[in-house]
Amino acid sequence: MTNPEVRGRPSAQAIDEAKRAKLAPLLELVGSDLQKVNEEILRRMDSDVPLIPELAGHLIASGGKRIRPMLTLGAARLCGYGGGRHILLSACVEFIHTATLLHDDVVDESDMRRGRATANTVWGNQPSVLVGDFLFSRSFQLMVETRSIEVLRILANAASVIAEGEVLQLTTQNDVETTQERYLQVVEAKTAALFRAACRVGAVIANRPVEEADALEDFGLNLGVAFQLVDDALDYAAEQQELGKTIGDDFREGKMTLPVVLAMQRGNAEERAFWTRTMADLEQEEADLGRAIELLERHNAVADAIALAGRYGERAIAALDIFPESDTRNAMQSVVEFCIERRH
Amino acid sequence: MTNPEVRGRPSAQAIDEAKRAKLAPLLELVGSDLQKVNEEILRRMDSDVPLIPELAGHLIASGGKRIRPMLTLGAARLCGYGGGRHILLSACVEFIHTATLLHDDVVDESDMRRGRATANTVWGNQPSVLVGDFLFSRSFQLMVETRSIEVLRILANAASVIAEGEVLQLTTQNDVETTQERYLQVVEAKTAALFRAACRVGAVIANRPVEEADALEDFGLNLGVAFQLVDDALDYAAEQQELGKTIGDDFREGKMTLPVVLAMQRGNAEERAFWTRTMADLEQEEADLGRAIELLERHNAVADAIALAGRYGERAIAALDIFPESDTRNAMQSVVEFCIERRH
Repeated sequence: MTNPEVRGRPSAQAIDEAKRAKLAPLLELVGSDLQKVNEEILRRMDSDVPLIPELAGHLIASGGKRIRPMLTLGAARLCGYGGGRHILLSACVEFIHTATLLHDDVVDESDMRRGRATANTVWGNQPSVLVGDFLFSRSFQLMVETRSIEVLRILANAASVIAEGEVLQLTTQNDVETTQERYLQVVEAKTAALFRAACRVGAVIANRPVEEADALEDFGLNLGVAFQLVDDALDYAAEQQELGKTIGDDFREGKMTLPVVLAMQRGNAEERAFWTRTMADLEQEEADLGRAIELLERHNAVADAIALAGRYGERAIAALDIFPESDTRNAMQSVVEFCIERRH
Repeated sequence: MTNPEVRGRPSAQAIDEAKRAKLAPLLELVGSDLQKVNEEILRRMDSDVPLIPELAGHLIASGGKRIRPMLTLGAARLCGYGGGRHILLSACVEFIHTATLLHDDVVDESDMRRGRATANTVWGNQPSVLVGDFLFSRSFQLMVETRSIEVLRILANAASVIAEGEVLQLTTQNDVETTQERYLQVVEAKTAALFRAACRVGAVIANRPVEEADALEDFGLNLGVAFQLVDDALDYAAEQQELGKTIGDDFREGKMTLPVVLAMQRGNAEERAFWTRTMADLEQEEADLGRAIELLERHNAVADAIALAGRYGERAIAALDIFPESDTRNAMQSVVEFCIERRH
């Protein structure tokens, strides 16, 4: 809570606009491509089985920020790519992401996403699982159309790592002994794997030297970790409520995100018993979320998680140093700021 | 019930052996390859996250017949393939199949599969969904290793068609107006798509003329439909109970398989009301399964479904006529008999 903007309590709308401004430079450069990606997405989620576009569209059209496809477009642009395969690949990356969201919401029994009822709430778990499978296989069809084995290798590996990360997260859930290292392992797998792949494939289709592909991958990896660290911290940030977001979802599910990992390590016996009761045993009372936020504050746990996100963000920005300065490079680096500053 | 063997009531074990004998010729020819496939499967389902091999192994090691990978091995052999990619592809096909089984059991809320508790019963729905995703993405990693875009295209398309078929099945479930045409559309998508792809890729890796790939695909498609028709008929075949299998699962879920489609069309108003109550409204009483079997018998519905399976089986056998007679061709055709005669 040391940020002056937060102390000054600007309106939720002003915050939202300032936040989006950091995405504006990239959006300006790749906006027309992103429009094509959106059209491709709509075309490719179509099916003779009406429930598929209906359910997929509910989530896809619900106003996600399309950060991952923007990264693929930005990476391709940074590598001077002049063809058309980046549109297919960006749609593909968004399909993988959407498939994982559908399955995540089933697994987490979530009710709300992006301010709307989740697909599993509206249609039930069964179609959510199966439409997720459809989008996932559709993403592979899109990849195949790029006719690049290297692209397929990168994205198939990413998909596999994501699934492994999701299972790993499930096994750490409710485990109050989860370490920072294990937490970061989950985050690198379930979130950063797709960010890094989304960036790398942009360089690969442009046939750029491996150093550039490696640099973009490094950028995506660090950006992805920063993104998830902030996301997890936001779940305990009271000011989020002003933006109409619910807080405490991770707490209610007993998800061991970094703030809790740190508070658990730094807490006394009584505090550790509190975390064990609420996170491991899931015995929670009305006042527990408030108490959790108080303990996180006492141990600087949210601030430290955000600070760690900042360090990952710096690494992401530095990774692009091998590219000469350009509007595109600046715009890509601005995405890092967007991800870090989402909390304001 | 016109088969003399059934009237003579041979022991369950004798039935089982006779049944398996039809798979024996192919097993003899591809047995050593199938052993390699099994080893590849075990190697590839491994992960640093212990829950993955644990859960996947529960299903994979539970004694499935490996018909789909055997078809890939047989098709490759029929096309004179001499390389090693058929092992990878067969493992890949089995992974796709296993992933769909895991998700099917979640969607159907099934308790038992292959005589064991389902993974969702043992570990819950969450890991079943996620480990299914893992196996699915792992199957794509295996495909990528074949470095054949054509193979990837065929299997990515198959995966997409399967998912579409599963969603379509969900929308026909409890719909007593389901037609035979719609039923066959579901079966071609959810089951036959993988059979046909499993066969076609065998010809593709062998670089055989398109006529041979088409013939094998035609074989797989018709075999797959026959297989599912028999599978669905078996769910109402009382003699299955002697083999230790439960019957009536489809009935209890209100799945509109062909026997019920036919009985509904052929029934009088009172019978149609029975099907509407039990299958659409899922209001079922103890005696209803017996009554359902009685109605199916009255309208020859199970026998007609089996007869239709026989016609698909004949088409499958005829599809291989373009290949000169050989042990391999005979063994592949014998798989058709295995699938048709499973009911004994």
